[in-house]
Amino acid sequence: MAALSTTLPLTRDSVVSAHKVVKQHVHRTPVVTNQTLSELASTPRTAEELEATRFAGKTPAKPVLRLWFKCENLQRIGAFKVRGAFYALHRLAQEPGWLEGGGKEKGVVTHSSGNHAQALALAARESGVTAHIVMPEISIPAKINATRGYGANVVFSGSTSVEREAVTERVVAETGARLVPPYDHPDIMLGQGTLGLEFQDQVESSLASSVNSAGQSLRGVYAAAATKTRGSRQGLDAIIAPCGGGGMLSGVALSCEGTGIRVFGAEPSYQGADDAKRGYEAGELIPTVSSLTVADGLRTPVGRHPWGVIYERRLVSGMFSVTEDEILKAMRLVYERMKLVVEPSACVPLAVALFDEDFRSLVEREAGEEGWDLGLVFSGGNVAVGSLGAMLAGQE
Amino acid sequence: MAALSTTLPLTRDSVVSAHKVVKQHVHRTPVVTNQTLSELASTPRTAEELEATRFAGKTPAKPVLRLWFKCENLQRIGAFKVRGAFYALHRLAQEPGWLEGGGKEKGVVTHSSGNHAQALALAARESGVTAHIVMPEISIPAKINATRGYGANVVFSGSTSVEREAVTERVVAETGARLVPPYDHPDIMLGQGTLGLEFQDQVESSLASSVNSAGQSLRGVYAAAATKTRGSRQGLDAIIAPCGGGGMLSGVALSCEGTGIRVFGAEPSYQGADDAKRGYEAGELIPTVSSLTVADGLRTPVGRHPWGVIYERRLVSGMFSVTEDEILKAMRLVYERMKLVVEPSACVPLAVALFDEDFRSLVEREAGEEGWDLGLVFSGGNVAVGSLGAMLAGQE
Repeated sequence: MAALSTTLPLTRDSVVSAHKVVKQHVHRTPVVTNQTLSELASTPRTAEELEATRFAGKTPAKPVLRLWFKCENLQRIGAFKVRGAFYALHRLAQEPGWLEGGGKEKGVVTHSSGNHAQALALAARESGVTAHIVMPEISIPAKINATRGYGANVVFSGSTSVEREAVTERVVAETGARLVPPYDHPDIMLGQGTLGLEFQDQVESSLASSVNSAGQSLRGVYAAAATKTRGSRQGLDAIIAPCGGGGMLSGVALSCEGTGIRVFGAEPSYQGADDAKRGYEAGELIPTVSSLTVADGLRTPVGRHPWGVIYERRLVSGMFSVTEDEILKAMRLVYERMKLVVEPSACVPLAVALFDEDFRSLVEREAGEEGWDLGLVFSGGNVAVGSLGAMLAGQE
Repeated sequence: MAALSTTLPLTRDSVVSAHKVVKQHVHRTPVVTNQTLSELASTPRTAEELEATRFAGKTPAKPVLRLWFKCENLQRIGAFKVRGAFYALHRLAQEPGWLEGGGKEKGVVTHSSGNHAQALALAARESGVTAHIVMPEISIPAKINATRGYGANVVFSGSTSVEREAVTERVVAETGARLVPPYDHPDIMLGQGTLGLEFQDQVESSLASSVNSAGQSLRGVYAAAATKTRGSRQGLDAIIAPCGGGGMLSGVALSCEGTGIRVFGAEPSYQGADDAKRGYEAGELIPTVSSLTVADGLRTPVGRHPWGVIYERRLVSGMFSVTEDEILKAMRLVYERMKLVVEPSACVPLAVALFDEDFRSLVEREAGEEGWDLGLVFSGGNVAVGSLGAMLAGQE
């Protein structure tokens, strides 16, 4: 990773600057809408539905929500992580002395068995940089093969984080490779934040063309948006992004700074995976998490650099958490109604919009009948397809 | 259904005419590409891979294929069937005397538990027409509720085709409703064929804009297409569509008549579900099929009207069939690589492109190094999500 002294300031302008680099390497993923899900989100839940939940006894909220989905599940390697990886490598190459010192050959290293490993392997290959990926010996062959398929050198370790970090340090010592962490670095945050810029732009364009064509292209609930007046701006009112290590959430928050768009974070509550929410409320970063939530991309504690943006600078307006059941219900709706393959982590923001009465009350209170154009980040689509039946069954 | 004497001739112009009606009610579904799958389709299989198949001992073909996918899984109700349903209702309303005789109130009827039932229910509701849907008593509650959700009157029957037809006849006798069959009628064929027109137009536009932007928007294997010279035309060379009753395949074939685009049909071979292929080769329609292929939308025999277009007029250039294993392999690739939810029937054309050496040899022979821009119809995405694990597991 490039030295911290060389990173750009954590501002929207720096995200814009990162986007100029990143957009040459990644897809401008589509933004889609879905009338059924927007109607469902805009329908108050019944008192009976709330009875068995943590909202028992509350009056069901009546928010008006027009949902927009940023499809990073359709991104290269199937997740937003390529954005940060490409930008991190670009910044490394800008660091004085790195190239001249044989940086490309010494390469980069990370320990991950997830989306970040594949993202770094791909970005490294296309940047002509050696990549070492430390993976647990027990990783499934398909993941090992996929990472090798991108030309990375796979180094095996034990499966605890201590064992993985020890092997990573050994690789650094032996090869001179630079560590590229999955989220806790300003360059990664700026890279991931580029999806937020596209999201803002794509929704604005859609709404503008929907006005031009008299609402024909976006029907039903979206027609209302065309007549909404909120000063001169037509676009997103808020975005909910999933929060694991917080690299992407903080990047998206930076991309919205000064725009008036509110940003919220979404976490699973299972086994304390809502560390960022609890920390946000307690005013103190919670450094460790041990959760086996089905949202496997969100099992990590929030990083120090993201925390500075999310909490200390209050660029995230609030954190919400949902249950395993709510995540899987949202996921099932995406498969059935949107026909998109998403991983459980990607469905946590939708679960908040549909099932979190605290969030829904907030929308009702702040937006009234005009409602919100709400952006939800589908962060990735990498799920073991053989396990889909078990995850999606039994919810008829 | 409108009387046969009132239907338009089965020509491309009639499909164009149907499109003017249908496009007001249905989505212009996206056409997408996928570099990984195009590369896979353009990679010769190994002799070892062929060893365990019906192509053992053959020399692996070396086709060059740039794949384009028409995403009717993202269509309203999740399948192309709404096109035919809307057009059939439009044509009924044109029939002299139908409206005046209280046609809207008498309504329409069909027996189906699949995509056609939901399509007709939706089209009827939006056209202000009563819909009676005959469904087996053993249908799963979710399907019954979905059909009722569109405002249709669900009438239960036994589950054999004889029992269902008897109940349907009773409904016709009691209500005066018109039968709208799922595929064996010219109006249905013309309606379904409208997807073929969009497909042609969308691929041409994509290729044109890829030339304009110097190949930037479509990279890698698609860049080659931009430099391909085939007279003045840039667009699809061929389309493969799934064939069950043949309504959609014949409609797509009509949409391509006179364009130079070749159309092929794809079927499952399991338990003789490849009736259209066998009939095509024997020169005689095969009227019955009894197969439980995983491609459940393709278990029906080809209809008489589609047969006239597919075989007698030779608007379909050839039929191909694939195994259950090949269908599920293709389906798994779509979930993993394209992140799209598709039903097994929708994956049969891709299975042909990837695994049928007869088809692949044909492309190599006819297109050589220039290859083909090949359109594949993703016909629908309605799959019981709880069963996905069983369908997609165990193929690591």
